[in-house]
Parts: sequence; C-alpha cells; structure tokens
Amino acid sequence: MRGAVLYAPGDIRVEELDDPKIIEPTDAILRLSATCVCGSDLWPYRGVEPVQGPSPMGHEYVGIVEEVGSQVSTIRPGQFVVGSFWASDNTCEICQAGYQSSCVHRVLMGTIGTQAELARVPLADGTLVATPDLPPDDLIPSLLAASDVLGTGWFGAVAAQAGPAKTVAVVGDGAVGLLAVLAASQLGAERIIAMSRHAPRQQLARQYGATDIVEERGDAGVTRIKDLTGGLGAHSVVEAVGTQESMLQAIRSTRPGGHVGFVGVAHGVELSVEELFFSAVHLHGGPAPVRRFLPELIDLIWNRQINPGKVFDQTLPLDQAAEGYRAMDQRRAIKTLLTI
Amino acid sequence: MRGAVLYAPGDIRVEELDDPKIIEPTDAILRLSATCVCGSDLWPYRGVEPVQGPSPMGHEYVGIVEEVGSQVSTIRPGQFVVGSFWASDNTCEICQAGYQSSCVHRVLMGTIGTQAELARVPLADGTLVATPDLPPDDLIPSLLAASDVLGTGWFGAVAAQAGPAKTVAVVGDGAVGLLAVLAASQLGAERIIAMSRHAPRQQLARQYGATDIVEERGDAGVTRIKDLTGGLGAHSVVEAVGTQESMLQAIRSTRPGGHVGFVGVAHGVELSVEELFFSAVHLHGGPAPVRRFLPELIDLIWNRQINPGKVFDQTLPLDQAAEGYRAMDQRRAIKTLLTI
Repeated sequence: MRGAVLYAPGDIRVEELDDPKIIEPTDAILRLSATCVCGSDLWPYRGVEPVQGPSPMGHEYVGIVEEVGSQVSTIRPGQFVVGSFWASDNTCEICQAGYQSSCVHRVLMGTIGTQAELARVPLADGTLVATPDLPPDDLIPSLLAASDVLGTGWFGAVAAQAGPAKTVAVVGDGAVGLLAVLAASQLGAERIIAMSRHAPRQQLARQYGATDIVEERGDAGVTRIKDLTGGLGAHSVVEAVGTQESMLQAIRSTRPGGHVGFVGVAHGVELSVEELFFSAVHLHGGPAPVRRFLPELIDLIWNRQINPGKVFDQTLPLDQAAEGYRAMDQRRAIKTLLTI
Repeated sequence: MRGAVLYAPGDIRVEELDDPKIIEPTDAILRLSATCVCGSDLWPYRGVEPVQGPSPMGHEYVGIVEEVGSQVSTIRPGQFVVGSFWASDNTCEICQAGYQSSCVHRVLMGTIGTQAELARVPLADGTLVATPDLPPDDLIPSLLAASDVLGTGWFGAVAAQAGPAKTVAVVGDGAVGLLAVLAASQLGAERIIAMSRHAPRQQLARQYGATDIVEERGDAGVTRIKDLTGGLGAHSVVEAVGTQESMLQAIRSTRPGGHVGFVGVAHGVELSVEELFFSAVHLHGGPAPVRRFLPELIDLIWNRQINPGKVFDQTLPLDQAAEGYRAMDQRRAIKTLLTI
C-alpha cells in the first residue's frame, strides 16, 4: 500500500509500504476512505518534536472495515467506521468515566500511521464507531473531522463548560479552535468570541456561531475580552494552540471561578501555580477523549445538523501529502484532506 | 486595644494599637471572641514572603458586633458573627457564582489584622454570617475554624469533587488538610487516604474519617496511592501544602479524568503544562471562597455534627501570640487558638 512517512523535519514522502496485518485478535484492518494532516503533525514536521528515523504519519481516519480479528464481535467487515487517535478498550474504569484517551490499554494511532491506504486499528470494538449506513461522499469530510479535530474542539468546549448563558472565548483559529466555536454554539453558549486575525478563518468562525471576533493577542487580547465581559473575563475559554502565550492568554481571559479547557498540545509551556491559584479558574484539558463524543457527533453529522468538514479548505490526493504539510505549515491551508 | 504585629521574620509582638473605627458606611467593628494563627501566617514569619515594616497579623475571627456603619442593614450590634479572610459584597456576579474570595470589591482581612481585641470588617452585610444565638463557649473553636481552615479544607474537597463512591487522597496534614479529610467524609467519600507521617495528626485524621494513612511522600507516596487504587490513582486529591513537591504529588496521585483541589498557598511552584496535559486531570483551587460555605458550616457546627475545633491543639492568651507562632513553625502545634 501507499503511505506517508516523515524522514526528517520538512521531509514527508509517500511511498510503498507493507500492507498492515491483523496482529492481535482484537484488531481490525480498515481500507481508508480519507485521511488528513493534523496541526499536531506539524510539531515533528517543524522539528519541534524530535523525528527518530522514518515514521509513518497520521492518526485521523474513516474507512471501511476490511478484516477483523477473531475476538472482534461488534465491528464487521463492510461497515463504514470512524475512530480516534487513541485506540481504547472502552470498558476499563477510565474509559467508562469518559477518558478513553487515557484507557489503561490505549494504543496511539500516530505510531501506526493513517495517512495511508490501509490501517490496522487495535481494540476495534472499543475504538471504532460505525455509521448507520455507508455515507454519501459529501459527508466524508465531516465524519473525518469527527475523528480528531471536531472531537478535540468539542472536548475543549466541554472542558471549558461552555453552555447556556455563558460567554465563551476561543484562543486559536486553527481547525480545532474553529470547531470549538461550533461546539460552543451546539452546547448553547450565549456569546462566542473567536480570537483570530485571519479573514477567512474569522468568516468560518462566524458561520460556526461566533458572535464576536477579537484580533488582539496576548495582554491586548486579554484586555479586549475583559472589555467585552464587563471587566470580569469570559466564563469559559478554550485554549487550542499549545504555546506559553496562548495558555496565559486563556487563563487571564477567564473570570474567577470560570473554566479553561486546554486542548492545544503543550510544548515547553510552564505555568506559575501562584498565578493559577489567584486566578481561581478551573483548568482541564489533555488529549481529547474523542471516543466519548463520537456517537453524538456522528449523529449530528449524519442528520446534517453540523458541517465540521468545512475546515478542510484544501483537498489533495494522498500522493501529494508533502504539499498538504507545506500548505498547513505556511498557514495557506487551515486543514488538508487527503483522498485515497 | 492589644494586637499582634510582625516586625521582621520571627519577630511577632503584641502591643497597644489604636482601636479600629468605622471608615466606610458598610463597615462593622467586632469585639473578637477568639482568633488564631494560620499556616499562611508562617510564610512571612519565616521570611518566605517579604515583611514590609510592622504589619498587623491575622485574618481568622469570630466575635460580637460592636458597631455598624450607616449602610449596614442585616448585621446588628450584639450578634455573634463569623467572617472569612476576604471581605466580599456577596452581591456581585463573581460572588453570586460562589467565588466571594474574588469579589470585585474584596478586601483582604490580613491587611487589617484580626489577631487583636477588635477588628474592622468591611462590607459587613456581605462578609459576616450570624449564628442563631450567642454560642456556648465550647463551640467557639469550631466556629473560629469555619472562618478559614475548615472553609479552606471544605473548598479543597469540593474543588476535588469529593463525594459518594470516590476515593479521596489528601496531601498535607496541617489543619487545612485534616479538615479536608473531615469535609470529604461529610461529602460522602467512600475512602479517604490521609498522607501524614505524624502520629497525632494521623489520629485526628482517622477521627475525621480517614480510612487509610500513607506515610510516604513524593514519588513513593504516589506509588502507594496507585497501589491502593488498582493502579489508577485517586478520583479526588486535595493539595493542602503549596510546595512544588506537594503539587506534583497531588497531580500524579490523581487518575486521568480525576480532580485535584489545591488550596495550599503556592510559593515558587512551577508546573509543566505538558505533564498536566497528559495527566488529564482537572485542576482547581485558589483562595477559598469560605463565604460560600459559611451558612452550611455554621449549621453543622451549631448542631454538633462536626467538631473542626479539634485542630486547635494549643490555646494561648493573645499576649502570648509569639509562642503560638513558634510552636506552629516548629510543628509542635497543629494550630494555635488565641483567647482574648
């Protein structure tokens, strides 16, 4: 099969790889319908995370089940399924509490690679959620978004306790940030402030439910949020970047007793606990337990109540993955879908 | 009046001070029935916080209302009242959300000083809660505890979401930690692990509802908590110290998706957001909004359902405040009550 491999920072190649095989009896093999490039793929692509030899890339995926292991009982060949970036058993105590991304048996899909024609998915019964039927082609981008960016933005909004009567601010206008706006809107937030200085992203934020746009960043951004909220700060702030500046911007934009949901994968961020203490905010985040939300998200997409697939503003064949990485790295694209 | 003043690290003196007067029409003047020394008073006493000139000390207080300003309408002279360390209006949006310690009009009682015969309390209607009647003497220690350490321990347990079917661990065996054990028990926690290596404190923790004692600290303490919780960590952990080690111990003892309530006043503590991200815990803390809990706590004390006053294992007259500080600094006393 063909698959994308990162050799070194900036060096993505699509090449011929061995077809994946069932290894554990709980595995499934999927023939992927589409995959995509994630903001978090840019960390190793940019050399911010070390690249250790050629690594298969990608962790977002939808596709048709081709084969299942002998212990797989609910997932069947021929089904169209959505999974997330952590394979999880969905039965352990941590999964049952809704934290499948910390499942005691979890497997990181990024180490397997899904920017490819086929993928092995461990713990198939726990990890995969089937759609009611084979989807029409135009739903595939949205179902693919559910696999990570929608699920992550949704978790950010849930962690920030977005809901009725709340003012929600979103730091970060990448795909996750934009879909956190959509999530906050679906969760009933009264007012949604998107922090963005890019016109096309502002426009999509508005389509997804943003009521206000703030272009300022850092302390100036915090001041604007305070101005918009009677001096108090937002009730709920989603952090969807993962830098020192974005994290402080999120915490400082939140009113005392409010909630920060942080889903940007933090890199080199240090927090003064004194500042956190006196801010009196709630802080929750981490790798999103997308599996918790998948049934609900698939349902919303299937019934065309949400269209998260709009975050894909570039579509390329898998063989042109390198151009997809470049476009996202240079912020020419919000998110690149790879057709297979 | 007589009052305690900190001149320099280790130098506490009780001396003659001016009687406080009504300054704002929302003030009240209390004649204090008792006051006490707080673990947080030890930070400047030890020189960890800078001491800027002679400072009146203390922020815990109960007493009888002597005089009220012209705009005080619910609090009346002659009432026995309990207040907390932040004076708050109890009407602003932040107070109404239960975060009176971040009230937009808050005044820190520690800057006024309550280790004295009299104290001025700003925002009297918002800050003070009257008992049903004048209390019998034996209830005064417990009512005084409600003013800070009980309210703070209670907030820690609430922030950690202690409750039925939960395993709660408490890091710190000072008065706040011990009262977090009591709070967790009152909130219905199934199992309460007190982390302490001091026999008298272990004993009080057991009286307050601890089911297990862990003597190990740091990584060894984390390992013990994991061992006691099927490898997962506690659902809820209260951090009641405020050091780097205690904060990491708390976070690492918590299972993914669990809750850390941190109420130790942090000093020089830095947190890696990467670690926090991958821990997937909830983190909430800060200066406790004691006012939120006062009516309920006074009720529990009045009906003799709880006895938080047992944390006072030393009682001295106000004039011997210096010995009270020394005893707490040297950990000879858990907490010192000063009679007036």
